[in-house]
Formats: sequence, structure tokens, C-alpha cells
Amino acid sequence: MKIYETRTAPNPRRVRVFLAEKGIDMEYVQLDIAAGDNLSPEMRAKNPTTKIPFLELDDGTCIGETMAICRYFEEIHPEPALMGRTPLEKAQVEMWQRQVEFYFMLQVGMCFQHTTGYFKDRMNPIMDWGVEAGKNAAAYMKQLNQHLADSQFLVGDYFSIADINLLCALDFARVVKIKPSDEYTHLLRWYGEVSSRPSAKA
Amino acid sequence: MKIYETRTAPNPRRVRVFLAEKGIDMEYVQLDIAAGDNLSPEMRAKNPTTKIPFLELDDGTCIGETMAICRYFEEIHPEPALMGRTPLEKAQVEMWQRQVEFYFMLQVGMCFQHTTGYFKDRMNPIMDWGVEAGKNAAAYMKQLNQHLADSQFLVGDYFSIADINLLCALDFARVVKIKPSDEYTHLLRWYGEVSSRPSAKA
Repeated sequence: MKIYETRTAPNPRRVRVFLAEKGIDMEYVQLDIAAGDNLSPEMRAKNPTTKIPFLELDDGTCIGETMAICRYFEEIHPEPALMGRTPLEKAQVEMWQRQVEFYFMLQVGMCFQHTTGYFKDRMNPIMDWGVEAGKNAAAYMKQLNQHLADSQFLVGDYFSIADINLLCALDFARVVKIKPSDEYTHLLRWYGEVSSRPSAKA
Repeated sequence: MKIYETRTAPNPRRVRVFLAEKGIDMEYVQLDIAAGDNLSPEMRAKNPTTKIPFLELDDGTCIGETMAICRYFEEIHPEPALMGRTPLEKAQVEMWQRQVEFYFMLQVGMCFQHTTGYFKDRMNPIMDWGVEAGKNAAAYMKQLNQHLADSQFLVGDYFSIADINLLCALDFARVVKIKPSDEYTHLLRWYGEVSSRPSAKA
């Protein structure tokens, strides 16, 4: 099997860190999304949404969407569990990973796309919305900081895919100059801890 | 346990349909989100994001995010499985449910929020973005229609939470006048089949 990705993009890194935590080796195929490698007829046949990363199994079956790829590996390679170990923990991981996605990562991504015009050949950027999305992302960091005052990781003392997603989102957010202010000491404590794990280099 | 929700909103319906498919009875507490019931100090203490629905367990633990609530019930009440039965199927369900969310439901939601000003007391609507998001949602229906030409449900012949999400998103989309055109015969065939299940009334 192999994963088609773009090394510098934030979503592929979520998968790479996830696989590094599980100790899974993978073959990666690089696509230059700025040049439109992902838009070719061959790639669209494999991956109609054209979003990266996507996983191609040995029989040619393709799985798109970062979290779906991670789910596949969580199922076939359960240890260490990164999506929760009990029903409640699985729900809490899903809650936090989705809050990080919807209220931070997605807002950062829209800020990037709508303020930089990076994909203006394939979408219609709305500058005012990009600015607003950036404000949404910045505001959510306050909630994260409050939560992490009493919690080692996003879900108590359990390191999970929610932490991986926040790490990758925070690092990507620097591209649009969004970063935790010095007063967010709990968020910065968390960042120091998670970014020093060996998997963060993936 | 109980679920705090707003009967007419699309996300609570996703949970109600999911629980109906599993045959799980639930106590629901109605919150008037237009009046800001969800923004009270008491509700913020339970559910800091203020988004509905959220689940409160008997010990007071609260779980927000629609899919996290569904994940909890999938774990404690596995039959019938609605999130996949094999590793590959679980990944395919997650792929489709996320594509429906990101490329359709979320776009419809932003179209609603940014063009109607429904939440203008608590956000800054950007009309141009609302219009654009509506176009994104409408465009994605073409991909859905193509996919459903060869597939009974979103994941082959397996009815899943991805179908529930698309049903609820399509019904909500009518609020902003987005609906499948008559030429999307496969999507309409699917809609007829899924909306006639008893759970669709939930």
C-alpha cells in the first residue's frame, strides 16, 4: 500500500505522525498540489475529491480523508490505541479531535485559502471571510488554553489523535501568523510536550 | 442519560435518526438556541462550545459533537453497526461521512449562517462567503450523484451513518433553497430510499 501526499501540507502530516506513533512504515508518493498533480485524470479516477492525502491499498482500493486513513490503521494495527480504549474515551477523543478540526484547523485552513489566494485557480477566495476565519481560530485558542490548565493532553492523561491534530494545526497556523500568545501558558506547556515526541518530526 | 438539543436543527436530527436505527430510547431536553438557552452559564459549564446537541451521562460527564455522541452509542450498543463492520468498511464509512460533512453539510451550514444572519448576535456574517459556500454545496451534489449511480448507499449496499448525515444535510439544505436537480436521478433514487426508512421520521 502507499499514501499519496504533499510533504509540506498539514493533513498529510497528521497521518505521518499517527503512523510514526504506531511504528508503521509507509511508502509515500509526492504530489505537487500547487502544480495540480492531484487534478490529473489518473488521480481523479483514484481520488475524486482531489484532496490529499489518500491511501491506495494493494488491490487498488483508495481511501481519502485523513481521519478515515487513520481509522483504517487504528483497526488493522490497534496498538498503541490513538483513538481511545473505552467507549467513553473513544467518544471524548472524537469530541476533541472534531473540536480541534472545526473550530481551529478548518478555520486556519480557510484563513490560508481565502487570504493568500494559494488555490485561486480552483476556488473563489473571499478575503473578508479569510480574515474572519483567522479570528475564529485565534479565539478558540483561549478555550484550548483553559481546558489544558487541568488536563495533560486533550483527553486527560491519554495521548491521542486529537493531540496529533492540534499539533499539526498549530504548526500550520504559523503560515498565516496565528500562534498562541505568551499568556496561554497551558497551551504552550502542552505544545512543548507534544512537539518534543519523536513522532512530531514525521 | 439525556441529550440537550434543538428539535429543528440538523445536527440533533443526525443523532435521533442514528438512535432510531439502533432502537435506543432517549430523554431529550429542548434548548431554544435562537433565544440563547445554550449560552447560559449553566449550559456553558456543561458544554463550553455551546453547540448542540450534547449528551449528558448519569455521572454528569458531557460529550459534545454529533459524531462523538454517535460513536459512544456505536460502542455501547454495537448492533446494528452503523459505522462499519470491517476495518476497510469503517474507513469507507468515515471517508464518506466526512466528505458529506465537509463538502456538503458544512457548506450548507455556512450558507445558512452567512446569508440569513440567523446568528448575527454571536458571529459576523460575510454574505459573499455564504453565497460561495452555497455554490460549493450545490456543486458537490454532482459528485454524489455520480457515485450513487453504482452504489445503493454511500458505502456499497451497507446503510451507514454516512447516509444518515447526507439525509439530514439534504433536508436542511432546503432552508437555503439548495436541492438536487431533477437530472440527479441517482441521488434522488437514494434519497427516496433513505427518507422512507422509519428512522427518517426521528
